[in-house]
Amino acid sequence: MKNPIVSIIMGSDSDLKVMNKAAEILDEFSVEYEKTIVSAHRTPKRLFSFAENAHDRGVEVIIAGAGGAAHLPGMVASISPLPVIGVPIKSSNSIDGWDSVLSILQMPGGVPVATVALDGAKNAGLLAVQILSVSNKKLQSAILDYKKQLNDTVMEKVKKLES
Amino acid sequence: MKNPIVSIIMGSDSDLKVMNKAAEILDEFSVEYEKTIVSAHRTPKRLFSFAENAHDRGVEVIIAGAGGAAHLPGMVASISPLPVIGVPIKSSNSIDGWDSVLSILQMPGGVPVATVALDGAKNAGLLAVQILSVSNKKLQSAILDYKKQLNDTVMEKVKKLES
Amino acid sequence: MKNPIVSIIMGSDSDLKVMNKAAEILDEFSVEYEKTIVSAHRTPKRLFSFAENAHDRGVEVIIAGAGGAAHLPGMVASISPLPVIGVPIKSSNSIDGWDSVLSILQMPGGVPVATVALDGAKNAGLLAVQILSVSNKKLQSAILDYKKQLNDTVMEKVKKLES
Amino acid sequence: MKNPIVSIIMGSDSDLKVMNKAAEILDEFSVEYEKTIVSAHRTPKRLFSFAENAHDRGVEVIIAGAGGAAHLPGMVASISPLPVIGVPIKSSNSIDGWDSVLSILQMPGGVPVATVALDGAKNAGLLAVQILSVSNKKLQSAILDYKKQLNDTVMEKVKKLES
Amino acid sequence: MKNPIVSIIMGSDSDLKVMNKAAEILDEFSVEYEKTIVSAHRTPKRLFSFAENAHDRGVEVIIAGAGGAAHLPGMVASISPLPVIGVPIKSSNSIDGWDSVLSILQMPGGVPVATVALDGAKNAGLLAVQILSVSNKKLQSAILDYKKQLNDTVMEKVKKLES
Amino acid sequence: MKNPIVSIIMGSDSDLKVMNKAAEILDEFSVEYEKTIVSAHRTPKRLFSFAENAHDRGVEVIIAGAGGAAHLPGMVASISPLPVIGVPIKSSNSIDGWDSVLSILQMPGGVPVATVALDGAKNAGLLAVQILSVSNKKLQSAILDYKKQLNDTVMEKVKKLES
Amino acid sequence: MKNPIVSIIMGSDSDLKVMNKAAEILDEFSVEYEKTIVSAHRTPKRLFSFAENAHDRGVEVIIAGAGGAAHLPGMVASISPLPVIGVPIKSSNSIDGWDSVLSILQMPGGVPVATVALDGAKNAGLLAVQILSVSNKKLQSAILDYKKQLNDTVMEKVKKLES
Amino acid sequence: MKNPIVSIIMGSDSDLKVMNKAAEILDEFSVEYEKTIVSAHRTPKRLFSFAENAHDRGVEVIIAGAGGAAHLPGMVASISPLPVIGVPIKSSNSIDGWDSVLSILQMPGGVPVATVALDGAKNAGLLAVQILSVSNKKLQSAILDYKKQLNDTVMEKVKKLES
Repeated sequence: MKNPIVSIIMGSDSDLKVMNKAAEILDEFSVEYEKTIVSAHRTPKRLFSFAENAHDRGVEVIIAGAGGAAHLPGMVASISPLPVIGVPIKSSNSIDGWDSVLSILQMPGGVPVATVALDGAKNAGLLAVQILSVSNKKLQSAILDYKKQLNDTVMEKVKKLES
Repeated sequence: MKNPIVSIIMGSDSDLKVMNKAAEILDEFSVEYEKTIVSAHRTPKRLFSFAENAHDRGVEVIIAGAGGAAHLPGMVASISPLPVIGVPIKSSNSIDGWDSVLSILQMPGGVPVATVALDGAKNAGLLAVQILSVSNKKLQSAILDYKKQLNDTVMEKVKKLES
Repeated sequence: MKNPIVSIIMGSDSDLKVMNKAAEILDEFSVEYEKTIVSAHRTPKRLFSFAENAHDRGVEVIIAGAGGAAHLPGMVASISPLPVIGVPIKSSNSIDGWDSVLSILQMPGGVPVATVALDGAKNAGLLAVQILSVSNKKLQSAILDYKKQLNDTVMEKVKKLES
Repeated sequence: MKNPIVSIIMGSDSDLKVMNKAAEILDEFSVEYEKTIVSAHRTPKRLFSFAENAHDRGVEVIIAGAGGAAHLPGMVASISPLPVIGVPIKSSNSIDGWDSVLSILQMPGGVPVATVALDGAKNAGLLAVQILSVSNKKLQSAILDYKKQLNDTVMEKVKKLES
Repeated sequence: MKNPIVSIIMGSDSDLKVMNKAAEILDEFSVEYEKTIVSAHRTPKRLFSFAENAHDRGVEVIIAGAGGAAHLPGMVASISPLPVIGVPIKSSNSIDGWDSVLSILQMPGGVPVATVALDGAKNAGLLAVQILSVSNKKLQSAILDYKKQLNDTVMEKVKKLES
Repeated sequence: MKNPIVSIIMGSDSDLKVMNKAAEILDEFSVEYEKTIVSAHRTPKRLFSFAENAHDRGVEVIIAGAGGAAHLPGMVASISPLPVIGVPIKSSNSIDGWDSVLSILQMPGGVPVATVALDGAKNAGLLAVQILSVSNKKLQSAILDYKKQLNDTVMEKVKKLES
Repeated sequence: MKNPIVSIIMGSDSDLKVMNKAAEILDEFSVEYEKTIVSAHRTPKRLFSFAENAHDRGVEVIIAGAGGAAHLPGMVASISPLPVIGVPIKSSNSIDGWDSVLSILQMPGGVPVATVALDGAKNAGLLAVQILSVSNKKLQSAILDYKKQLNDTVMEKVKKLES
Repeated sequence: MKNPIVSIIMGSDSDLKVMNKAAEILDEFSVEYEKTIVSAHRTPKRLFSFAENAHDRGVEVIIAGAGGAAHLPGMVASISPLPVIGVPIKSSNSIDGWDSVLSILQMPGGVPVATVALDGAKNAGLLAVQILSVSNKKLQSAILDYKKQLNDTVMEKVKKLES
């Protein structure tokens, strides 16, 4: 693997199915990434060393997914200077997803987490690409193409529905 | 200060007014405690060293209060072997307190936090005393006295109301 | 059965599947326990005699699980001097679990219940062990081992995922 | 005081302001009542003896108000054969009243509580009168008069608004 | 059918499965009842004539179940002098049952509805029996027997679990 | 007063302050209206006769505001063939407005209520105008002017802010 | 197809199953309509041109359904002078439907959306017919017939249940 | 003003007080920005031209704040290729802020909005700086300094509290 510039982390391997949608988007935009498990509650030291070193390893954006009392995105954001995108995951014992949404979204002043929709890993991948595109006009152009594709796919369905 | 056996920590000095109610209870039961600020998001290293060392310093129970996306109690619980009592605090930008309640309560299997009611620091103090009383019959006896007092105070109000 | 030092009670036999996870943890830590049904609403006298006598029988920690308008943990806590751990259970007619969570968590000042996550009986078992470990260094050491195991299990999954 | 046939109980004297509205209605319908404090959590024995004896003392309907994790109405209903009307009260640390509403409403099959609106003590009083009116045609007639009054009061406001 | 003294009404035949649990309880206590459909929104005139006449027909208690924006119990209560028990039903398009719970519970001052738990028709039946038992000592005695049965059933499960 | 074509009704005179915003909009568009109190729960007969006759009196749109268990809009819609606009009002004992929102919005199939935002009487007025404009090109043109005004007012603020 | 006077639009073809219920009602009342996809987020230009031109094409009422962060109804309402009926749809990643309900309902003053129940497309169709019936007495008469049918269908079920 | 690279937009001038906290952070990090009103519902054309042109004008990150049914951030994100940070604002008629939170957060796959906490404009400013710092090591270094400051400020309060 080349040097990853996006790091996709998740609290548990049970989050993998959801978080893979972020990876698929990064593949689509040819952005190098790594994908691993970092559990805030079961591997706290790993969380710390991960968050302290990510920017020195060349990572530029972190995507962190977690469910329930989801502390991973916020704790990484408290340590790393990088932008952190948080994906609330509706885990098995979740109270309808409200727990992970609020645990990730409601960060105190000084430590932002860029939160996306419940189970919204696809959008986390896209947001990472948009963040990288700020200094990469090729990526910005690819984003514009992607938006055009979204539009075209809808227009095909429009035609199909109307005929 | 003698060696504290309960440690009261909070995410911000704005939590002090609520958390002092835990301290008052510990004073009432003559339990030695310390009281300080440990911010999961602004002092993550302090959080780690605090949580790693507390049991070696002689602390036996930790009371942790925090608001919003309240990660302090859960992160301390992930590192320390001690029982951690979590106090959800209704901070200024809170969504009616739901954020801190769910961020503290909904911990994943393997890492419990003993959660009390919203702004329930008084009960956090009492729960710490109850935990200590497991191996301290004098404290258990004091708890029974306390319950008797609760009863007597209500009974006085009953008399006043009925007369 | 030896003298139980933890008592696991539940409002209904339909809670057994969830509450057995607390028992499994106590087995894992070789803590003696009893497991029975005490219904606040259908066996109120039993609730009273249970709660009045538990500490005299040698019980040191009570774990109480209940669903819906879950009054069992709070009523036991109102009578017994022991620390009471409450497990909100998502029962069949529950309003998404909110009823049991709030009925257990929001206890008034003076009568704490150590509440864990919805259906979080496993963590209730662990919290009981942590409470007992306050005066039992062997148990504290076992808790530290347990945390190491949690970490190691994640690390194995990390290796598997990354390879 | 004559023999009370309605018993108004509440968990705390802080509930008095709300619960007095039930008393005012009973006064209006000339129904004898008693009004006192019974705390499920601070006076559990009193709760038991109250609930066990109420019907033998001649009480026919119980109105019970409580806030937060409101166990009073449900526990009285678990012991007494009498119809119990529950008044959820929005107490100071309440999570917007949801805690008391759900703790009173969501009773398990076998033990009903007749729940009224948040802080709805006035309606609890009226419901008690309606229950008594089942075997008392004078009271039923008074209820019909009361409904006529409600109607007339609105009609006066209609006239005032339209003129 | 003898003269019914309880009337079980529901907004739709899809509510029948839930509402039959009220009928079963009335059968168990040998209370005469009728069971029919009265839709507030599709048969408003029927709602009016039903509610105006029920007490003259000898009905003493009304049990009304409805889902979604559940107006049936409250509208019957606005017209009839009889005590009305409301059963919130979790219908197919319901927002987790909150709509029917709040539509039935939150009645304005002057017009009470005795609300039971979501889908709690069994308790509605029991509450009707309790209301009737106010002037019927045989029924009160049957209620006490029923409570004893609840207790005995639990105790059998206790024995089974402990052996 | 000329023949009103919009009827603004509300459950209580305490709703007048909110509902007057609907009247102000109708004044602005020179639409004739009437404004009165119709309480579903305190004046049910008036509700019926109002709803049965409104269309025969020449009323073309009904705006109905109510709080708590808000049955007025839905009950009028069940009787009248006219389009009914419902305004959920956050009344004093409301559970944060959820009760009136859900009681008005969640109508069953067959009986729609056009629901606007909590306390959104201004939009109820505008919606009435839009409904009338379907067959009145002058009104449609006035709506387009109104939209232009909204735009212009913002643009003035933009200029002020940017200078 | 004749000139459509109602336009049914939806954010995605996955909404088709729900939105077809609106079309069925319009068929039942012989109201001409069109049905197509307009995605606020994927075809924003199409949204604009649709909303700007609908009234000039002869459309008189717009029905717009969308799920999640549902912006389609509100954005169409911000551009078009026509009455817009919003249908909140419970999409796959929805937080129990609350997101679409609140995104559509809580429009700011000046830009109303006539919101119906979650997945309430049938009622959206009926509301459109009611709006058109304001200037079309035949349609109003058909609405009255429809209400009679609703009543008759219930009455048949009443007979079946009672026999 | 130099060429702004961050654009702070808001739906109404009543959002200015909250949104100014984003501007203060950008001032602190010497990031050029513009600040203006763009109302999705009252100035839809302005919304479109703003969103279509922002990236061509040199803007690199957009911060968009809005309350209630908050469509501004999502609609800008649907048109512009730039990363959009959404700030949910608790406006006056808001249902406790849930409406703006869910309207901004729950975007469909393909169109992300980086959502921050309710009224969390300060964090929106910081997130913008972090996004810019991806290709600007000076800014990343400033972020690390900022984190150190957060830490130091807490440590001063720790000293003050402990002395």
